[in-house]
Amino acid sequence: MPGSAAPLVDAARRGDRVALARLLSVVEAGGDDARAALSALPVTVADDAWTVGITGAPGAGKSTLTDQLVGHLRAAGERVAVLAVDPSSPFTGGAILGDRVRMQRHATDLDVFIRSMATRGHLGGLARATPQAARVLAAAGYRWILVETVGVGQVEVEIARAADTTVVVVNPGWGDGVQAAKAGLLEIGDVFAVNKADRAGLAATVHDLRAMLELAGPRPWMPPVVETVATDDRGVVELLDAIRAHRTSLVDSDRLAEVRERRIADEIRALVLDQLTKQADDFCSGPRFATVVRQVADGTSDPYTAATILSDGAD
Amino acid sequence: MPGSAAPLVDAARRGDRVALARLLSVVEAGGDDARAALSALPVTVADDAWTVGITGAPGAGKSTLTDQLVGHLRAAGERVAVLAVDPSSPFTGGAILGDRVRMQRHATDLDVFIRSMATRGHLGGLARATPQAARVLAAAGYRWILVETVGVGQVEVEIARAADTTVVVVNPGWGDGVQAAKAGLLEIGDVFAVNKADRAGLAATVHDLRAMLELAGPRPWMPPVVETVATDDRGVVELLDAIRAHRTSLVDSDRLAEVRERRIADEIRALVLDQLTKQADDFCSGPRFATVVRQVADGTSDPYTAATILSDGAD
Repeated sequence: MPGSAAPLVDAARRGDRVALARLLSVVEAGGDDARAALSALPVTVADDAWTVGITGAPGAGKSTLTDQLVGHLRAAGERVAVLAVDPSSPFTGGAILGDRVRMQRHATDLDVFIRSMATRGHLGGLARATPQAARVLAAAGYRWILVETVGVGQVEVEIARAADTTVVVVNPGWGDGVQAAKAGLLEIGDVFAVNKADRAGLAATVHDLRAMLELAGPRPWMPPVVETVATDDRGVVELLDAIRAHRTSLVDSDRLAEVRERRIADEIRALVLDQLTKQADDFCSGPRFATVVRQVADGTSDPYTAATILSDGAD
Repeated sequence: MPGSAAPLVDAARRGDRVALARLLSVVEAGGDDARAALSALPVTVADDAWTVGITGAPGAGKSTLTDQLVGHLRAAGERVAVLAVDPSSPFTGGAILGDRVRMQRHATDLDVFIRSMATRGHLGGLARATPQAARVLAAAGYRWILVETVGVGQVEVEIARAADTTVVVVNPGWGDGVQAAKAGLLEIGDVFAVNKADRAGLAATVHDLRAMLELAGPRPWMPPVVETVATDDRGVVELLDAIRAHRTSLVDSDRLAEVRERRIADEIRALVLDQLTKQADDFCSGPRFATVVRQVADGTSDPYTAATILSDGAD
């Protein structure tokens, strides 16, 4: 039903939350319907909105920090959307509650929209859908879009990076910043939040982070390191100030266009990869795949030959 | 130089560590050379070796635990190889030291082979290369292959899963197991290690883990939960016993063939995806890509049209 996209887009832009939720589902599913919906939204629409990626290891306190940021943005009169990128778990048959529950204080606020994006299927699809969902939310009038994701896998890091400002959340004593570096988080952070700052090891972690950031040499924007205790709302105003300062820095220089063009490039790349990954899924299923696997297990073929046979699509 | 693979394979099998290291580099690089090298190694060679995946969040203590397991396996007279799957960091121009340094006590032991696999390029390549590297190590006579990886991203979880026994490492109070469930680690663990068991919250974490594992219902092997303090070598013998018990359970039932066939299927799937991902990288580079990105940024095209143009390979 590609024809149904345009009315959904109109309704979502008028503030219809049900239409917005349906539109996001269309965009998440991808394919022709998503294409139709997104073609109705000029890319430049997103210009009015600011996307903030919030990433870090599991348990770093990203959800609580996001929750507090929403509160402060609301207090400033802003409309806020949250995209929570959660790995779904076949163990429980779906995404696990928990963090989401804490967000309930915003559940009745019509100027807050929270969306949990499950990693159904492959992450490539999520890397494609997340910026598209952000564009839909921008079109629906949300001026701040917070994208929360676990920042350890490469794809998750890419999702967080597809933001105007990327906040990396670490904890004191969390492997003294080395773990963050190992996960590739130092390169992508525009702002660092050392959360749970009431814990031991704060000074060492802040020191290590700053030292590692300085190692990379001077640049137009040196990422600040902000100490927060999200559960007590401590340092969150300072964190939001740092995000706003980064925004001002990008807007006042010519770097915003550069960042946004990089984001468009990432989005196109994710779309291409998504198409090819679906192709791989098709190749690697069904009786033909089973036969080839059996041949390798029997020792009558090898994985490379099997992969080539499958990729060529020949019988 | 595809012709150079066979002598390297022979030398590696004779115990030549330099040849083994070169062979692993060939396999990591992929392509025709890897194909030639691997075709010289029957898949069934791996039957004598046991691959143990060790995964968990950053900072859970996986490296220290791996180090202690190596010590106990060596004490039992086993030859051991370690594949450490580390995200490389463009920030430092390469993989960061740290954990690796701790392994130095095995550096002069000729029956221990440690290999750090960097995530250069895309993770799809790593998902392909890791089981292949394990096969090479098995052919070189290492009877135990420990694969250490950060278990948060989907691909990293898949890498750990491509093992005969998967050990999931969590910490007390680490989001009381819910974080592990969110990362999809509960489904893949054959053995759970609650490491840093001297910390507060141990009983609750062990209880939560067991409760969540029981939720999934009865099955041929119920994953045991072992308490460890890797830094003091506490509980590591029990962990190794649990790994050996899982091995016995698989070998004594008909499930080993099933597990190994699943692994072959995963390897073929990774090879297919790797080929397609390289194709995506080719599509999304060069002046043609830059032109298309510029068109989307200008508003004269949209990401879907751009992706279709690139995927079709037409000008």
